[in-house]
Amino acid sequence: MQIKMGVAKAGIKPSGDYDILVLRFNPSVYSAVFTQNSLAAAPVIYDKLVCSIQDKISAIVVNSGNANAATGQKGFENAEKMAQITAENLGIEKEEVLVFSTGVIGVQLPMDKVENGIKEATKNLQDFDLELSARAISTTDAFYKYYETTGEIDGKIFHIKGIAKGAGMIHPNMATMLAYIFTDVKIEKPLLDKVMKLVVERTFNSISVDGCESTNDSFVIVATGENDIEIDDSNKVYFAKKIYEVALKLAKMIVKDGEGATKLIEINIFGADTKEKAKKVAEAIATSNLFKTAMFGNDPNWGRILAAVGQLHHNIDFSKVKLYIGNYLIYAGEPIDFNKDEIVEYMKNNKEINIDLYLNQGEEDWSFYTCDLGYKYVEINAEYTT
Amino acid sequence: MQIKMGVAKAGIKPSGDYDILVLRFNPSVYSAVFTQNSLAAAPVIYDKLVCSIQDKISAIVVNSGNANAATGQKGFENAEKMAQITAENLGIEKEEVLVFSTGVIGVQLPMDKVENGIKEATKNLQDFDLELSARAISTTDAFYKYYETTGEIDGKIFHIKGIAKGAGMIHPNMATMLAYIFTDVKIEKPLLDKVMKLVVERTFNSISVDGCESTNDSFVIVATGENDIEIDDSNKVYFAKKIYEVALKLAKMIVKDGEGATKLIEINIFGADTKEKAKKVAEAIATSNLFKTAMFGNDPNWGRILAAVGQLHHNIDFSKVKLYIGNYLIYAGEPIDFNKDEIVEYMKNNKEINIDLYLNQGEEDWSFYTCDLGYKYVEINAEYTT
Repeated sequence: MQIKMGVAKAGIKPSGDYDILVLRFNPSVYSAVFTQNSLAAAPVIYDKLVCSIQDKISAIVVNSGNANAATGQKGFENAEKMAQITAENLGIEKEEVLVFSTGVIGVQLPMDKVENGIKEATKNLQDFDLELSARAISTTDAFYKYYETTGEIDGKIFHIKGIAKGAGMIHPNMATMLAYIFTDVKIEKPLLDKVMKLVVERTFNSISVDGCESTNDSFVIVATGENDIEIDDSNKVYFAKKIYEVALKLAKMIVKDGEGATKLIEINIFGADTKEKAKKVAEAIATSNLFKTAMFGNDPNWGRILAAVGQLHHNIDFSKVKLYIGNYLIYAGEPIDFNKDEIVEYMKNNKEINIDLYLNQGEEDWSFYTCDLGYKYVEINAEYTT
Repeated sequence: MQIKMGVAKAGIKPSGDYDILVLRFNPSVYSAVFTQNSLAAAPVIYDKLVCSIQDKISAIVVNSGNANAATGQKGFENAEKMAQITAENLGIEKEEVLVFSTGVIGVQLPMDKVENGIKEATKNLQDFDLELSARAISTTDAFYKYYETTGEIDGKIFHIKGIAKGAGMIHPNMATMLAYIFTDVKIEKPLLDKVMKLVVERTFNSISVDGCESTNDSFVIVATGENDIEIDDSNKVYFAKKIYEVALKLAKMIVKDGEGATKLIEINIFGADTKEKAKKVAEAIATSNLFKTAMFGNDPNWGRILAAVGQLHHNIDFSKVKLYIGNYLIYAGEPIDFNKDEIVEYMKNNKEINIDLYLNQGEEDWSFYTCDLGYKYVEINAEYTT
């Protein structure tokens, strides 16, 4: 893909590492979704405006180390200035640029540093390096998150490359999950928006580290259209699956990097009567502190799982419910005997744990991804003060 | 008050301490509310049936050590049997007895022990001892929860006595908050139901230890009518306030006894446009892990408080919002300078912390009570396995 990138160490991030990323590409179809937190950050508010008037974009600029959130009117002006500076240095229109920030909440951006950083990044454009770009947008990430794959339609190859950052709403006053996926197919915006909607619901909207939604969460898919594969009704399902594959890999990486996480837990709900219910049930389990601490303690505590579901006040007949941890049946409409030692061993020896819950009331399913809750979460969030 | 009680060590509780409580009183007006968890325990399902047909009750029986929850049809039959045994031994009708259980989820009640315990308890009735009765219903409580007060109407004194147990949904597979308040006034059931509704919303329904709602939560108010004070329109507000006072004391004790809690945090929302919104905002803050760990770390982290509010997706104008920790203003529509050291000192030196949030969009207020989240919570919930 003909995507170019530039990075800079602008001095916004306390560590002194790369904290500006500029991505430059041909005017491209795109689809973007943002946090629904009503304390949305300035760049989110700005980008939403741009998205409402702009069909194609040509650049993305991200700073890490400062979220530009809860910064009022001045914050909004600074977000717009970031777009302006980027556009000027790339020789494009301001409206072709989307702006993202991640880092500390409630502090104005150091615009001198931001400006110098963007100038430097745009001066030294290079080929798209996934690891380096993931590094430039990272904040408290324990590892850099990126993934790429290819697909084939009518014998022709297309590419998908994704980068992401975040571990829930991690450090004190640190915000944000950011994810960007690029592909080189040709696709109309309405169809890309549909693909986005499908994919984001089953990936980035189905992960939870601590149930806290950040002020800056953003996810963008860009289709540069530089190869001659056209996505239409005949191949849209295949294309959506490939995008889903990349998004899910990135989403799982974010959960794995959850604060103090020792396990990735996949919660699969089967047999719900509606998709919405399946998702709510999965989410209720994924966000229960009692469940997450039990997972940390390798405890096959089915009572906590069912109680979390019961807390939804949904109409569920628990006498029809079956619950598995891994391949072990631990509840079947009533308490049953199971070999606890064997299950504890499975939980101790696996970094990825499956919880499968069969509601037996319909045909809908949903998967949600979360991590366990251990001492490290408390340490990170309590001992590192603002 | 002419309330009699009996206790027994039936051997249901692993500690061997008192685990059966029987309370006996004249046929009395009562009002009861139960958990809305759809995995409601057998005694809750049974009591709800009784409440729908019964205007007065004469006895309450509680066992601790076993929740009789997720126990299916047999669990229901055992709950009914507890009422039957109690009624027979007291010489009253089965429908005059409400039944409660608290303890481990998913294990059938040891009915031999229960029956012997009830027999012993009913044989040795004594005067109502608040501490002893609180002890008999306790499970993992760090201290026994009870409170009493008196009120005066037209120069005549009435009494209110309350007991409670619980610390959220505390130990692994341990469930339940139980609370009972007794008063000796005369009151009609419809009016007592109204008082109950008012009181429970602002007390037991406005506390959170870990956001997890148990399978057995129950709260009962009993009015024996043995003195000649009649509650009517002229004094109902005063009476409700007195009941509220006792319920709030008990509710706060439960939060203080939250798992690993080092602080009781009172979250006061002012100036919401609706009561419902005020409560939702208070609850969103009270259940945010990021907020609760910051409180544990004595960190005046206003970004986490506002982000928790933003996560509700309510229409809130954050440029009008004012936020205080204790008496210290820390946000006023935009980030402001504050003396952080002074606030950290306040947080370190106080076991009860106030968070006051002014939304400035209406006249409604709400208070919610929670505790901080520290290492001890993880220890209790992860290291003690089922």
